[in-house]
Order: sequence, then structure tokens, then C-alpha cells
Amino acid sequence: MQVSQTAQRAPEGAVLLRSDAGGVATLTLNRPQARNALSEALIDALARELDAIADDRTVKAVIVTGAPGPCFSSGHDLKEITARRSDPDRGRAYFEDLLGRCSAMMQQIVRLPQPVIAAVESLATAAGCQLVASCDLAVAGEEARFCTPGVHIGLFCSTPMVALSRNLARKHAMEMLLTGETIPAADALRMGLVNRVVPAGHALDGAKRFAATIASKAAPVLAIGKRAFYEQLEMGLTDAYAHASRVMTENMLARDAEEGIGAFLEKRQPRWE
Amino acid sequence: MQVSQTAQRAPEGAVLLRSDAGGVATLTLNRPQARNALSEALIDALARELDAIADDRTVKAVIVTGAPGPCFSSGHDLKEITARRSDPDRGRAYFEDLLGRCSAMMQQIVRLPQPVIAAVESLATAAGCQLVASCDLAVAGEEARFCTPGVHIGLFCSTPMVALSRNLARKHAMEMLLTGETIPAADALRMGLVNRVVPAGHALDGAKRFAATIASKAAPVLAIGKRAFYEQLEMGLTDAYAHASRVMTENMLARDAEEGIGAFLEKRQPRWE
Amino acid sequence: MQVSQTAQRAPEGAVLLRSDAGGVATLTLNRPQARNALSEALIDALARELDAIADDRTVKAVIVTGAPGPCFSSGHDLKEITARRSDPDRGRAYFEDLLGRCSAMMQQIVRLPQPVIAAVESLATAAGCQLVASCDLAVAGEEARFCTPGVHIGLFCSTPMVALSRNLARKHAMEMLLTGETIPAADALRMGLVNRVVPAGHALDGAKRFAATIASKAAPVLAIGKRAFYEQLEMGLTDAYAHASRVMTENMLARDAEEGIGAFLEKRQPRWE
Repeated sequence: MQVSQTAQRAPEGAVLLRSDAGGVATLTLNRPQARNALSEALIDALARELDAIADDRTVKAVIVTGAPGPCFSSGHDLKEITARRSDPDRGRAYFEDLLGRCSAMMQQIVRLPQPVIAAVESLATAAGCQLVASCDLAVAGEEARFCTPGVHIGLFCSTPMVALSRNLARKHAMEMLLTGETIPAADALRMGLVNRVVPAGHALDGAKRFAATIASKAAPVLAIGKRAFYEQLEMGLTDAYAHASRVMTENMLARDAEEGIGAFLEKRQPRWE
Repeated sequence: MQVSQTAQRAPEGAVLLRSDAGGVATLTLNRPQARNALSEALIDALARELDAIADDRTVKAVIVTGAPGPCFSSGHDLKEITARRSDPDRGRAYFEDLLGRCSAMMQQIVRLPQPVIAAVESLATAAGCQLVASCDLAVAGEEARFCTPGVHIGLFCSTPMVALSRNLARKHAMEMLLTGETIPAADALRMGLVNRVVPAGHALDGAKRFAATIASKAAPVLAIGKRAFYEQLEMGLTDAYAHASRVMTENMLARDAEEGIGAFLEKRQPRWE
Repeated sequence: MQVSQTAQRAPEGAVLLRSDAGGVATLTLNRPQARNALSEALIDALARELDAIADDRTVKAVIVTGAPGPCFSSGHDLKEITARRSDPDRGRAYFEDLLGRCSAMMQQIVRLPQPVIAAVESLATAAGCQLVASCDLAVAGEEARFCTPGVHIGLFCSTPMVALSRNLARKHAMEMLLTGETIPAADALRMGLVNRVVPAGHALDGAKRFAATIASKAAPVLAIGKRAFYEQLEMGLTDAYAHASRVMTENMLARDAEEGIGAFLEKRQPRWE
């Protein structure tokens, strides 16, 4: 297992840890003393690591988790933001830039060729909840909790809402956004925010099981499918079928499908490229 | 508590009651002798009241409920409609106008700055079910039921479908629309049509709890968030993030966010404007 | 009861059976020796039968089921596809054409005037799962299972994904597509892929109950509503209401609504045309 600390060094160490094993890159938000808040440095570290992973053919699945503590991630770092209130523009340029970078990072997850799985043991709040919603899959320990509490501090969770409202039914998303209340893992499961709830302490194991299954598949095929998934969701039915048919024809003619179908018909294990 | 009866007087009294308390306006459909059907007068009364509330800074949340009886609301008033069959155009102009006004009123709920919560104890049918679906949140007593039974009378619930199909999974919405069958509160909860099921007789209490939570937040912040919620839902992911980021930057620079974040960091209660 | 075998004869008999009773056409995928795979012949037979049904005023509802065996349908016929690898273009033209015809057939179900109900007792996989997702309603026996296992053979289920992702929450659809794992009927119910789970062996009975309810309604009214349902889903809220209001006004002026509302007010059974 390789462990790298590519992220910008804060005095307390790397804000993001990466460890690779078995074709799975695990990214750990590592600011437990700051509730794993998505500081500028952490957002940038995530963006850089995702960028590197996108081109890394050894990585077949990604897990995003948080260093143990009360929060998977508490979202943006309010102290950082408040410090810029004294800028001549009262922080406008800073905040615009911060949200732009954070939104871009969330979209990197959606556009990453590899599937991304969140593993959540504790509280995922605001942009931390958005991070879970932005992943393709999510596993929660049974003590995990989720909220978008911006209304408590006069700052509606508008960017988290983009991801949340694409995961949940309307009234469920609205309830979280309007009340700011915290929902337990069981409700997150019922509402579709997470795929699995496992015993406390086992979220990372659960995510690893998903990752191992995914890593046993042909990575280029998953990349083709994941990309088409999000593309076709934004199309009408006719266009979606035309697009998916083109994508599937190209997939069919690629080497992995030839090998995979051949192996299936010959009742043997496929050998992916 | 103020109680007003601003709606058009029918011989039996006001068709819509409004009572305000603690920043919450409760609108009560008040045609119990007519199953709280959405007569022209009641649709217009709702539209007027919603219009007034939109500009009323004392109102922070709205509850829509029905006077006690067998129906929360039975939808359009079929006797009114049938009476216009004898018009020279067989009622076309009348019905077009009626549906246009009803659809506009439903969209007023979606566009109202304040969150709107349905409180349902009995049967919500056709446009009555649409009214529940159009609200941001909904609470049902455990004897509440829901249906879109237009197919029983040869008139598919096409406008209710617009709201219903934006709340429920496709096959769930189709089942209600194609069969016209009535679903109990428990199924409405499972399908996402309501947020909570409470003991019979307690739907209004449940709605008031939601409303009190919401009324404790900064109203302009909820207005910003609610508007952005429905706007971004109709956009692709990239546009949605760009829009939400702009909205959140403006929110950040407004007074309520400055006060809210300050209060949070100073561990005190915020004082909203 | 009429039983016809309009489909192309394979040596083992018709690949698609049709039997009509009580206004309900039941289409049975009849390749049990080949796991009811959607061969070219079967896709074409379905397309022809759906085409015929679209204009058949005696048919008020359609059931799609599979001849008894391990699979409701196993999806595309991999042997047929693999045989065309030796074409000069490695099968590109063949596969494009096949996917085009299959996608067109799936969209015929969505655009068919009559509601279509899937009845599933065993495994619905890949395009077989897509067939279930494409139907308006679905009933599963409790031993039914569902999967989109293309990733196992290097061929992502991209066209099945179009239908699946319009039925399920995002993370649920992604889980099925990325892992290829099989989900039991109970999960399919929870996720919204089927409307009902019934005791094993009773899926067809369950579908017939839905069909009988539907067949008791005015077929032209269901056709109006079904068409508008899928049309308005692709529109923004304002356009959806404008469209649904136009549709409902025309419906109101048609004979069935006049009869249906009249019958309701006179407390008698309606007589549909």
C-alpha cells in the first residue's frame, strides 16, 4: 500500500491523505482538529488529487472519507471566510473565487472517469453533505448524520442544494434545506442520499467492498458508462437514447467488450487490458 | 393571534380563512359543506391571499389546511364546471380560464418567498392533491389519503400531474394517475408526497412545528434559497452551479449572513433584521 | 380469449405470443430455451405487435411478461452479436442497427396510447431490466430479481441506463450500473422500479388487476394523459402547466369527460364510447 501526502502542508500536517491499494485510491480529509472543514487548502488539495487520479490508469475506484472525529466534514471554513470581511470589497471576490473552486471540485467528482464512493461515519454538513451527494455512491455508518444547516447562520446552502436536490425527492431536499435539521443515516438511506448503512465504524469497509467490486471491472468501460450516465440525464428521452446508443456502439467495438463477451460465452474469467 | 376573512363572502361565510400567529399565516380552505372544493371563489381567494403574503414581511411561513371534514380538498368544483356546458362554446373559454387561474395559483405557491407547508387530515383529491404536491413541505395525519381520480370521470388529472410527477418517482405517479386509486398516508410518506405522518388530528400541529422552525430563520435568506431551489432544478449541472454560486455570494454579502456567521462564531443567538 | 402468434416463426415456434382478453393484450416473450433474450426477431416482433396495438381500439391495456423460466428476459442475445464480429466492419453497422431498433421499441412502449404493465417472476437483466423500466407500471413476484450487469462483460448497460435512471434515484441507478449486482424484488419496490411485489407466481395476476382497473376507464382519456405525462416531464414548470392546461381543456370538451362527469353527478356508472 502506498501512502502519499501530496496536499499542501499545514502546520499540523497534510490536509488530505491519499493511500492506494488494489486499484483503489482512498482520499482522507485530514483536518480532524477543524472538523475536516473544506478550507481553501483542502479544496485545492482535493482538486489536485482528483486531477492526478483522472489520468492515473492504476486507479479504478476512489473512496472519499474523513479522518475520525465528530465530522466527516463540516463544510466551508467560516473563520477563513469571516477573516475576509475586512477586504475592501467585504470579501466578495474572495467568496466568489472560493465557491467557484469548490463547485469546480464537486463537478470534478461527477466528471472523474473513476467511480467515487463516500464513506461517512459522523456528521456531514453543508459542503460536507454536498461532497457525499456529489459522489456516485455512498456508504454510511449507522451513527452518520447529514444536514444542510446554512439557514441557522443566515447563509442558505445554495451550492450544496445543487447536489442534494439531484439525489433526493423534492420535499426531502426542501426539508433539509429549510429547517437545517440533521437527519440520521437511516433517513439518508430511505431518501436515497446513501446506498448502504453499515454498523458504526464499518463505513470504510463498506466503501471498500463497493470499490473492490468496481475495481474488478474494466476501468475504461466504467469511465464510458459513468460519463454517459450524467450526460444523458440532462437530455430528453429521444436524445438520451440516441446518445446512449452511440456510446454503447463504441463500447461494443472496444477491446474490453470483445474480451468480456468472449470470456462470458466461453465461461472463463475476462482479462481486462 | 389575528384572524382575518379576506376572501370573497359566500352566503355561508368566507371560503378561505387566514389566521396569523408567530410569523406564520395559516390559510384554511373553508368550504367543508362542499368538501373544500377549489371553486372559482376559493382559487381567487387563495391567489389574493398569497399575493398579499408575498409582500408581507411579518409572514415567515405559510400553512395551507382544510376545514375539518371528509376532504382536505376535493379539487375542482364539478357542478360549477358542468353548469357552463350550456355556454355557446360548451364551456371552453370558462374552463381554459379556470385552469389558467388554478395553475397560476399553484405556481404562486412555488414562487412565494415564504415556505408553504400543507397540513392534511383527510382526503386530498385531484387539484386538492396537486395543492399538497405544490407546497414545499407537507404533513399528513395518519388517516389522510391522496388520489388523482380523474380517470374515473373521463377527465385525466393532467394539471395535478405536473405537480405530482415532480414529487414522486415515475411509476408511483403513473400508478396514481392511471388507476385513480387512493393511497394512504403511509404510502404518501414512502413515495415522497409528504414529509411526515403524525397521529390523526395532529397534522396542523406537525405543520406548525415545521413553521416555527422555519420562522426562527431569517426570512430573506429562506426566500433567496427557495427561489434558487426551483430555478436550479430546471438547469443542467454546470449552469445550476454557476447560478447557485452567484446566489450564495449575494447571500454571503447580505446583513443576515454577516450577523448569522458572527453569532455562530461568538456562540450567541443571531438577531435577524 | 383470442391467442395469436403474429411473430416471426423460429424453429421452436413464435418468439412472441399475444393473447387478448377483456380489453387487455398480454405479450409473452417466448424464448424460454434462450432465457427470453431479446433477439432481433423478438425485438421486431415486439415492435410489430406494439404498432398493431397502437391502432387497435379493442386494446385498453397491455401486459408484457416472459414465458416461465429463469429469466423474464436476459437482454440482448450475445451469440447473435458475437457472430457479427467477423463482418468487415467488425459488426458496427449491425450493432448500431440493433440498438437503434431496440431503443425505438422501448420508446414505442413509452409512446403507446395504452398503458403498459410489466409482470416479472424471475430475472430481468440488461435490456430485460430496461424493458421493465420502460413500462408505465410493473408488478414483481417476490422471487423476481433485476440487474444491469454489462460491466461484468465489458459492455456498460448504456441504453438500459436511459430507462433505469428515469425510474430510480441517482445513487440507486449508479449502484446497479457500476456493480452489476442483482437486486431482489423488495429493493426494486423500495427504489421505485416496480409498483407491487406479490407472492411468487402471482405477478401476472397482479398485472391483470392493474390492467382490469385501467381497462374500466375511457381509453382515449388514458391515451391523452399518458402522452401528456411524458411530454410535460421534459418541460420546465411554466411550460408544463401551459401544456397540461391545454391538454386538459381538450379532454374536458371531449365526449368521455361530459359522460363521466355527468354520471358522477347523477351517481351512476359512466358509459364510455
